[in-house]
Amino acid sequence: MNSNSNQIYPVIWQNDRVSLIDQTRLPEEYSRVLISRSGDMAEAIKTMIVRGAPAIGVAAAYGMYLGATEIDIKDLSDDIATQRIQFLKHLEGVADLLRQTRPTAVNLFWAIAIMLRTAYEETGTVEEIKHTLLQTAQNIQAQDLATCQAIGDTGLEVLPHTPEKLRILTHCNAGALATAGYGTALGVIRSAWRENRLERVYADETRPRLQGAKLTAWECVQEKIPVTVITDNMAAHCMQQNMIDMVVVGADRIAANGDAANKIGTYSVAIAAKAHDIPFYVAAPFSTIDFDLANGSLIPIEQRDATEIFQINNSSVCAKGADFYTPAFDVTPAELITAIITEKGAIKPRDLINYQMQ
Amino acid sequence: MNSNSNQIYPVIWQNDRVSLIDQTRLPEEYSRVLISRSGDMAEAIKTMIVRGAPAIGVAAAYGMYLGATEIDIKDLSDDIATQRIQFLKHLEGVADLLRQTRPTAVNLFWAIAIMLRTAYEETGTVEEIKHTLLQTAQNIQAQDLATCQAIGDTGLEVLPHTPEKLRILTHCNAGALATAGYGTALGVIRSAWRENRLERVYADETRPRLQGAKLTAWECVQEKIPVTVITDNMAAHCMQQNMIDMVVVGADRIAANGDAANKIGTYSVAIAAKAHDIPFYVAAPFSTIDFDLANGSLIPIEQRDATEIFQINNSSVCAKGADFYTPAFDVTPAELITAIITEKGAIKPRDLINYQMQ
Repeated sequence: MNSNSNQIYPVIWQNDRVSLIDQTRLPEEYSRVLISRSGDMAEAIKTMIVRGAPAIGVAAAYGMYLGATEIDIKDLSDDIATQRIQFLKHLEGVADLLRQTRPTAVNLFWAIAIMLRTAYEETGTVEEIKHTLLQTAQNIQAQDLATCQAIGDTGLEVLPHTPEKLRILTHCNAGALATAGYGTALGVIRSAWRENRLERVYADETRPRLQGAKLTAWECVQEKIPVTVITDNMAAHCMQQNMIDMVVVGADRIAANGDAANKIGTYSVAIAAKAHDIPFYVAAPFSTIDFDLANGSLIPIEQRDATEIFQINNSSVCAKGADFYTPAFDVTPAELITAIITEKGAIKPRDLINYQMQ
Repeated sequence: MNSNSNQIYPVIWQNDRVSLIDQTRLPEEYSRVLISRSGDMAEAIKTMIVRGAPAIGVAAAYGMYLGATEIDIKDLSDDIATQRIQFLKHLEGVADLLRQTRPTAVNLFWAIAIMLRTAYEETGTVEEIKHTLLQTAQNIQAQDLATCQAIGDTGLEVLPHTPEKLRILTHCNAGALATAGYGTALGVIRSAWRENRLERVYADETRPRLQGAKLTAWECVQEKIPVTVITDNMAAHCMQQNMIDMVVVGADRIAANGDAANKIGTYSVAIAAKAHDIPFYVAAPFSTIDFDLANGSLIPIEQRDATEIFQINNSSVCAKGADFYTPAFDVTPAELITAIITEKGAIKPRDLINYQMQ
């Protein structure tokens, strides 16, 4: 990995443990949490110490490895073949635990499936399987970083051709913090900045958890990219005032028809972009596309706790006695998406079908 | 006024003072602030102890009267005619002070203009003018309450005809708290509730100041109207999920062509409503229509302090080093507005022109 001290890596494997940036403490405090057990990793994903679809995938992969290391060979049969079966059964339990953390991001299930398949396909001893699992988790991580950098480069191809530098709006955080590094939507923005094509980022604060104000703004400030934070409900007004040239957001899961689930509020931005003829891009690794789901209505939408709405930094912001509705994601229909920016190129939603058999 | 203890009156004239509900302390604390000087009233309007376009108008009218009482006849000429001129000059100064509080709501300027005209037209002594000014402020208040009740009744005529009871979305607070009582958008909702046509209110929390979560939810809870608070960015998703039958919002100023300025985020809701074929109504007293402005681009948009975005209940929610954009209002173009619900009936924006000469 690049040793540039500005680089942000939310998940680092070191000294037989996973070091996570505690994203619930940003931006007030940059601190890292050390995870050495799969149960702690499941909790870290659930409580959003680590969040963002690709980063969740990487964290879950390491969680699978940590779970594997917790399976003590002394507790297993002496027979090597039986030992292997017992080990795999335990590992399925670890997978179940990790799968129950967050339902919407497909990368979680994708990474767990890869780790399980690796374990099933490895023909060696339990210790050899464990070794291969660590390598696989590290590969998933390295691959995600490379993928994000490729997404950034793909993004350069679709930047609107304007005489002036671009003002790009994003929602939530699809940045280095949400991936192995560099980011998806923020990867495109980083590449545009590097190529001197970017004037300014507009970051929706992204209620209820404020990942835009807290995380996207923090990442931009770290790299001195000019960033203006707005409340979510200002995005349409900014578009009306000709302040936005392009929108790019991440995705937690994309259906086969191109419908894309992403952080709640993305759909609202997409409708507004359409109304103002502003290109609206989804940037995501190809692995975010779930070809098993025909359309977005089949994507499970996580409901989170109402305290996320009525409490901000432990302070109540709502009248007692009200009810709440708490979807964490929404689905933007394919027809509102200009293209999906992946490591394989920018793909129009209707062309996804051509990739299904690959 | 109705003596029903459930009724919410943000502005009350009693014992030669104005009693305001301190809306910056709701919903945690219901407390009233007593105002006996015009300077304090200007400050109360600026700091949003009293807010909402019609309520600001009522408060400013009393502010004008309080300013009038501060003009000491002993400091004026002995000559009655000169005294009157000196008094009016002082009163113009009070008007200037009050006008500088908030630029967008036309009701502020409208109420101040009525009070000034009253003073100029009253032919009696300074003491008689003061007496008439108090009567005029009280009339403005009583008229606003009656207007809101009439708006509620007009609203009943436009409720969608559905077999089920209605789920109505509103943004910000255009309730009793924002008016002399009863409310404009919440007036329509109150009338629907009274007539057993309402199932539930969906209240956008309305960042940055959270008037939906804090004030609209509080009003609904007071009257046992079921209310679900959502973050602003959930509104489009709720529409997509067929959870919303109708939208009704207030207005701070409506241009002659029907473009309507209202709390930031209203435009975003209007675009989403259009995309889902959901009727979008603006409820406002006829006095909110500013026939001097041809269209909404001429409405001045107040910019507020960035702390409203990056601090919530004195706690920072944003990365240090970010910039902010802080419009308090946006303009919804007439073509997105199904009709404007006024005390004179529900008027399609394009028909406003017929009322211009009245």
